[in-house]
Amino acid sequence: MTSQRSVSCGLDFSCAANLNECLVYAHDSKYDFICVPLVHPLFKREFISGAATNRLGPFTRPDLILSSSDWNNLIIAKFSPFINVDSTNPIIRRNSEETLNQELSLASHFGLSGVTLQLKHGINKNVNLARIISDKISNNNSNFQVWVQVPMENPIRQTYSYRTEDCLVDENPWEWWNAFRTICDYNKRLGIALIVSHDVPEMEEIDKWLGEPVRCLILPTTIFLTNKKGYPVLSKAHQAIVKKFVALEVQFILTGATRYQSISYYHNYLDYLWKGCQNDGTIEKFARGYEDYLQCPLQPLMDNLESQTYEIFEKDPVKYREYQSATYEAIKAFISKKEKRKIIIMVVGAGRGPLVTASINAAEMANQEVKIYAVEKNPNAVITLQALQRDIWKDKVTVVSCDMRDWNPPEKADIIVSELLGSFGDNELSPECLDNVMKFLQDDGINIPQSYTSYIAPIHSSKLYNEVRQLRDKDKHPLAHFETPYVVHFQNKYDIANPKPLFTFKHPNTDSVTDNSRYETKTFQVEQNCVLHGFSGYFTAILFENITLSIEPSTYSTDMFSWFPIFFPIKEPIQLKAGDEIVVHFWRRCDSKKVWYEWCLSKPIPISIHNSTGRSSTIGL
Amino acid sequence: MTSQRSVSCGLDFSCAANLNECLVYAHDSKYDFICVPLVHPLFKREFISGAATNRLGPFTRPDLILSSSDWNNLIIAKFSPFINVDSTNPIIRRNSEETLNQELSLASHFGLSGVTLQLKHGINKNVNLARIISDKISNNNSNFQVWVQVPMENPIRQTYSYRTEDCLVDENPWEWWNAFRTICDYNKRLGIALIVSHDVPEMEEIDKWLGEPVRCLILPTTIFLTNKKGYPVLSKAHQAIVKKFVALEVQFILTGATRYQSISYYHNYLDYLWKGCQNDGTIEKFARGYEDYLQCPLQPLMDNLESQTYEIFEKDPVKYREYQSATYEAIKAFISKKEKRKIIIMVVGAGRGPLVTASINAAEMANQEVKIYAVEKNPNAVITLQALQRDIWKDKVTVVSCDMRDWNPPEKADIIVSELLGSFGDNELSPECLDNVMKFLQDDGINIPQSYTSYIAPIHSSKLYNEVRQLRDKDKHPLAHFETPYVVHFQNKYDIANPKPLFTFKHPNTDSVTDNSRYETKTFQVEQNCVLHGFSGYFTAILFENITLSIEPSTYSTDMFSWFPIFFPIKEPIQLKAGDEIVVHFWRRCDSKKVWYEWCLSKPIPISIHNSTGRSSTIGL
Repeated sequence: MTSQRSVSCGLDFSCAANLNECLVYAHDSKYDFICVPLVHPLFKREFISGAATNRLGPFTRPDLILSSSDWNNLIIAKFSPFINVDSTNPIIRRNSEETLNQELSLASHFGLSGVTLQLKHGINKNVNLARIISDKISNNNSNFQVWVQVPMENPIRQTYSYRTEDCLVDENPWEWWNAFRTICDYNKRLGIALIVSHDVPEMEEIDKWLGEPVRCLILPTTIFLTNKKGYPVLSKAHQAIVKKFVALEVQFILTGATRYQSISYYHNYLDYLWKGCQNDGTIEKFARGYEDYLQCPLQPLMDNLESQTYEIFEKDPVKYREYQSATYEAIKAFISKKEKRKIIIMVVGAGRGPLVTASINAAEMANQEVKIYAVEKNPNAVITLQALQRDIWKDKVTVVSCDMRDWNPPEKADIIVSELLGSFGDNELSPECLDNVMKFLQDDGINIPQSYTSYIAPIHSSKLYNEVRQLRDKDKHPLAHFETPYVVHFQNKYDIANPKPLFTFKHPNTDSVTDNSRYETKTFQVEQNCVLHGFSGYFTAILFENITLSIEPSTYSTDMFSWFPIFFPIKEPIQLKAGDEIVVHFWRRCDSKKVWYEWCLSKPIPISIHNSTGRSSTIGL
Repeated sequence: MTSQRSVSCGLDFSCAANLNECLVYAHDSKYDFICVPLVHPLFKREFISGAATNRLGPFTRPDLILSSSDWNNLIIAKFSPFINVDSTNPIIRRNSEETLNQELSLASHFGLSGVTLQLKHGINKNVNLARIISDKISNNNSNFQVWVQVPMENPIRQTYSYRTEDCLVDENPWEWWNAFRTICDYNKRLGIALIVSHDVPEMEEIDKWLGEPVRCLILPTTIFLTNKKGYPVLSKAHQAIVKKFVALEVQFILTGATRYQSISYYHNYLDYLWKGCQNDGTIEKFARGYEDYLQCPLQPLMDNLESQTYEIFEKDPVKYREYQSATYEAIKAFISKKEKRKIIIMVVGAGRGPLVTASINAAEMANQEVKIYAVEKNPNAVITLQALQRDIWKDKVTVVSCDMRDWNPPEKADIIVSELLGSFGDNELSPECLDNVMKFLQDDGINIPQSYTSYIAPIHSSKLYNEVRQLRDKDKHPLAHFETPYVVHFQNKYDIANPKPLFTFKHPNTDSVTDNSRYETKTFQVEQNCVLHGFSGYFTAILFENITLSIEPSTYSTDMFSWFPIFFPIKEPIQLKAGDEIVVHFWRRCDSKKVWYEWCLSKPIPISIHNSTGRSSTIGL
């Protein structure tokens, strides 16, 4: 039983003469934290030259006025507004550097968990700032997060929206952030405090932020409307923005003067909105805690699955229902075709038997006598199969404890059923396994699944890039972690383009020479400036005729949770421009012992082959 | 005594029915090697389907017909012309893959030292080829170099030069190469065989190839003209091309039918041209063998130089001459200014005394009495100074065995002379050293050098990228080798733009607060598509008024060899487009123990800060 989580919202103060009073006020109005200047905003310091170089006395309040835990939990610090470490005036620049370092050091001393700063307008205008912040958060003397304030829309462009002439500023604030964080080398302690603008940008533009580490939305009180009852509410468009970010577990900061009797009204509304947005579907419940978590794909062919793994997957509410329908339709196809006394079904890779049960159910529905072989290589699962056979299935089922590739069956099958698919379709080596069993399928036999296709799509996700990057292993190839596909429940990502089909396998395979190696080139159009961090992978399968399974988003089998998508990283983020073409090349390669993928880009810029010769990741046969 | 090197030239055969005859013919005509098809060009093999799948018999000549050493030294192999591993037709593609793998394997078996292949037209058209070649040359079963044939000019564009309409093909063949080698991850065994075209491209375009691993120029016999005496010669434009590549030690391949009595005429001409192009200047002689070789910059402040190092640098024919002139002019400036009985000169960092000698010479020329202090921290060099003082300099010179930063002199100096400059000016910490000694310079005193300025320029050099890359050290930061500046005598590079001044230091420093940290942003325009691999660094110094030293190419002090340039790598090659702006940021940072550089890019794409907090390279104080 999970209770609904409450919104976490802070209150911004432009000036905090008495910190304790501010905290009491915020607390009484239900806010969780406050956002205050570290030093009085008008207290300018001069380190390089000027009258104030030798001013005596403390430059701000001492640490004693709050307990360590209050400094840590309740305060987000803002830096002095006059700081401009990227000034072209060297005196201003150096003085700003000293001031900023002083305040950063103070923030460490207070043990704050967060500080926040605003980017200047322009890609080149925050480079020295980036260097200083990166310095500070790369060493371990401080622990705070840095919330970088970025407006959703370029304020200059917003100004122009009231004018008739065209705005010549086409630099999106995202570009400032992108340059800033890239120069900071994607430091994990950098997050975004997105300033929600009065005018709402295009939805596509907002979506891009979903690929970024947005930690906080800053809501000016001016964007709120007053509803009929006299309380503050957000417009539909602003509500839509909030909803988009709920999944990222963002916090909020309310800034500006209240227009109501109590500032708590805003909090009440946000909490109401927040609770209304929680998504508690089957997948969300199943995947909670696994968002953007990288898992190595299962290798059920090389490794024997554990009891727990079987148990989880057998609970899928969709998969076995569809398999049963497909088997039912396949049986009916045989019935209509000719008089069959008994239909032979082979379940290859039977596991603990769910497909055997589905086949029996299908046969009963079709009122057709069947003989089922349940072939399984995992001796531990075979125990379960044998027990089920003895106690329930009886003589309908023959359990065969054998790798399907080595089996020599006593007769041919009318229907072969298997569930050997991975997140990327063929990545658990279904093609190689089934090639070996197709020789005991009747000429008019049916294989379930009949075919499957993998899909790929380019994605933008700082989060995943950072997750992959930290998997670096000194003892492996330096790029090994970028040359490995991961199974992952995507959350913090932006889809640069829709998925496209990649490799298709059909069973039975009618080619003269069976060749499960593949090479395909896919082209994607880039709609807006963004960053390529890798490719998401999905699959669809045709079980039988129109009965399908899919984890490809546009055709997704609702509520099916057996497969999370797969992620193919690339070794370096690639800056993309609207109008660019991404041309990606994927190979599926095979030798006698293993199968692996290789991938590379030829456009917009060439990128070397990942996982060349399977040096970093392979799937064992 | 080095004898002039001869040209190395091979002869191309479109078909070689009898390999031994071909070799005899080539050898008799003075050619060093031959270039022949591995398999008869008309012998098509079919692996996938088709009539020839089961054809019996050998597919080419056996290894026995040549000795191993002849296979190794005399043969460059060409692959079958019908191979098209990037065909969109899967049958052709797979058959081509098999054929190519067969021939690659044969080339290994023969122990060839080189194979050559041609790129298809188009960036996306060689990706599978790149994958197969990269596979082959990444493992150690083969040792051959791969010479990738690339035309200097797009043949389609060349065709259009005869038409009136505009050519819409703007893809330069360099783009094909660039994509190919990037996808092959800059494999060191890939080289270029540049096909010299009849029409010569712009010189700027040719210059770009100087940043690439060009191993060979392919010269069609059709580009030769006949001179008055009836022998083949190249046009001035083609001669200019050959001359450009002589420094890269390229080889040649002559291809096409001879139009003269003997094919040896071409060889004779090329040998004559080659010998005429050898550059044997002071620098070239001095630097031979060190081309593109990465050295760690000296740290004379932390480490004591060795006798041999002093010896080499004392031989510089330019540096001490200029120092002597500067000291002479400085003495004259004092003479003209006021009656000075004796001028006090301090040589700080006197080493083994060359600047002391220069100062004495200058004083004698000016007919001025001087008193010289020779301050040196290296106790081993002090021995030499003391001997020189006793035997030659006598009471004109006082030798002080002391670090100049700790010295407490008995009087103030009129002139302080030092040679503390590194390849990047301030990179041997001249500013920090001189800050400490300026307190004992008279108010009207002169420091030689008066100022110095570092310069940087963006460069394209596959060679240097590869050299840096292989310096990876498992025990250091994974990027450490890319975050270290190297001293290097550049050879295989293309200058993307001219150098620009970066940091300037003046002595004495008149700023109210002495601050040797620096931050500068430089912008460079990109003239043509190319790749950024890093920045070359230089310096100029004003010794006194108009007497300067410079290693910056446009003002280079001819014949001075004391400093090679410096190279600041970047961690990833950046693809540049004509019209792009490179915006680079450089910091010189200091703390109480060390000085270091940091650098990053904000345009055309942001790149993270290199050597953040000096994590990979610092200069010790």
